Amino acid sequence: MKEFELIQSIFQASRMADVRGRDDILCGIGDDCAQVKVPANQTLVFSMDTLVEGRHFPFDADPRDIGYRAVASCVSDLAAMGAKPAFFTLGLTLPDSDPQWLAELAAGMAELADQIGLLLVGGDTTKGPLTITLQVHGYVEQDKTPRRSGALVGDDIYVTGMLGDASAAVPIVTGELQVSPERFDYFYEAYWRPMPRLIAGMALKNIVNSMLDISDGLAQDLKHITKASDVGARIEPSKLPLSDALLDWRPEEALRLALTGGDDYELCFTAPKSARDEVNIIMQTLHLPCSLIGEITDSGFAVEGYEGELDGWQHF
Amino acid sequence: MKEFELIQSIFQASRMADVRGRDDILCGIGDDCAQVKVPANQTLVFSMDTLVEGRHFPFDADPRDIGYRAVASCVSDLAAMGAKPAFFTLGLTLPDSDPQWLAELAAGMAELADQIGLLLVGGDTTKGPLTITLQVHGYVEQDKTPRRSGALVGDDIYVTGMLGDASAAVPIVTGELQVSPERFDYFYEAYWRPMPRLIAGMALKNIVNSMLDISDGLAQDLKHITKASDVGARIEPSKLPLSDALLDWRPEEALRLALTGGDDYELCFTAPKSARDEVNIIMQTLHLPCSLIGEITDSGFAVEGYEGELDGWQHF
Repeated sequence: MKEFELIQSIFQASRMADVRGRDDILCGIGDDCAQVKVPANQTLVFSMDTLVEGRHFPFDADPRDIGYRAVASCVSDLAAMGAKPAFFTLGLTLPDSDPQWLAELAAGMAELADQIGLLLVGGDTTKGPLTITLQVHGYVEQDKTPRRSGALVGDDIYVTGMLGDASAAVPIVTGELQVSPERFDYFYEAYWRPMPRLIAGMALKNIVNSMLDISDGLAQDLKHITKASDVGARIEPSKLPLSDALLDWRPEEALRLALTGGDDYELCFTAPKSARDEVNIIMQTLHLPCSLIGEITDSGFAVEGYEGELDGWQHF
Repeated sequence: MKEFELIQSIFQASRMADVRGRDDILCGIGDDCAQVKVPANQTLVFSMDTLVEGRHFPFDADPRDIGYRAVASCVSDLAAMGAKPAFFTLGLTLPDSDPQWLAELAAGMAELADQIGLLLVGGDTTKGPLTITLQVHGYVEQDKTPRRSGALVGDDIYVTGMLGDASAAVPIVTGELQVSPERFDYFYEAYWRPMPRLIAGMALKNIVNSMLDISDGLAQDLKHITKASDVGARIEPSKLPLSDALLDWRPEEALRLALTGGDDYELCFTAPKSARDEVNIIMQTLHLPCSLIGEITDSGFAVEGYEGELDGWQHF
């Protein structure tokens, strides 16, 4: 078997590539194109993400972790649109073909993809420096799609989960810093195993005025909402959700990391004050922490009493 | 303006990213996901291709050529499915951000995309070795989609256009070989400016039993049809379409290049003998050369009188 066929066979044999029983997937891996029939009354939403070794994840990382996180980080964009995950394509550029490494990468991807009904339907494999491009696709009703541009003055601003843990974890996962085993485990997990807020996104889509996922740091991402909606925002730093682990380890940097650190993959959304009860019921039902962190204003971007940098992850 | 915004703005300002007037594109570049409403009674087909500098195109090539050919080679997969081009996403990994270079790349993409109604609706930009990933999407009726698996014993085998010119051109476009200006122009064009056979694909989809595009060499690609259809093939080498330019320049290698050279981006299809008149009428109407090169058989893969290698482009 040639290397190319070997690589294809590893992914094709995965349960995540088995399209039987899925009426929407008319053709998966193996023809010139994949073919999909989008269910009636649904629109297709999709997002492409590229991850370059040494830039978006550390060199020599565990391929299972790389695989899981690649799917999780990209699927997080579907959560922000309130969409149900449907299928994905995978562009894989590899320096060589180590079957064991590839099987682990596929297993990491499948670990999340199988859970959320995301099927692998196509892609491409090429030789070169390790780079992973995913395009994830989901379905959502046209009139129920949250956008960045819908925020209204007076909206509450919320975030799910905890902020800053993943970016705090970077020196741990790259091996630059040695920490206690307990601390290592917590932050390793925070970096490598984000859980995209899919159910929350689907539940919230009927309530929110605007929503996005926080991938580049809260402040930088929230500015996408204020810019697209032509409004401002006021954040109360004391309301930002900081984990005990982060406060315990890096108390002086926790706020900055929560405002500017990337890789949180939590949802940030705005909703009218009249929706507070609904938001609370959803979050309690999902057992998901959710924090009311501020308010949409006329203009400007204020983080009360904070004088540090607000820039987040720089893509280039 | 930061580099990332600069790069985005170059592509966003292109006419190919202007989604106004397209009812199917509900959201293009700028939100967490793009959003599309697939037209009624149509299915979505899509294909992802990754191009790595130095492997899929020469180092230091003209960015306009790179852009055009990236779109053309990927769109060729839509032609093979008889699909109408609709939109694409672009994953761009760049070592640096040279605005002039990027504007040329975008212009090359737009040169073809604008012609064929293919809109740029999203993607990602990252820093790293030059790598271009495209996912192109098209629409086609569910019951009229050609597949690789439909070939029947007794089918005629056809190819469009000329074969072997693009692979013959490689030493010219890499600068390894110096040739006369006329020869340079012909082969430069054959390599960098393939014309995906979209209209032919759409016209043929109602007639053919199987179809694909030839990207890795005729013999290797036709074997995808014989394997998927569980049949064989017999090719008559004398019927292969070889250009005068190729026969004039490399007469002894022309046949091998036509059988095994990559990058032709022509269509190969099989159709019942009863469809010969229809095929001829379509091709005459399109002024597209089309050659009947052999027949689908029970089993085996025979190229009469040819004893050379049949393997084509190796992906990895």
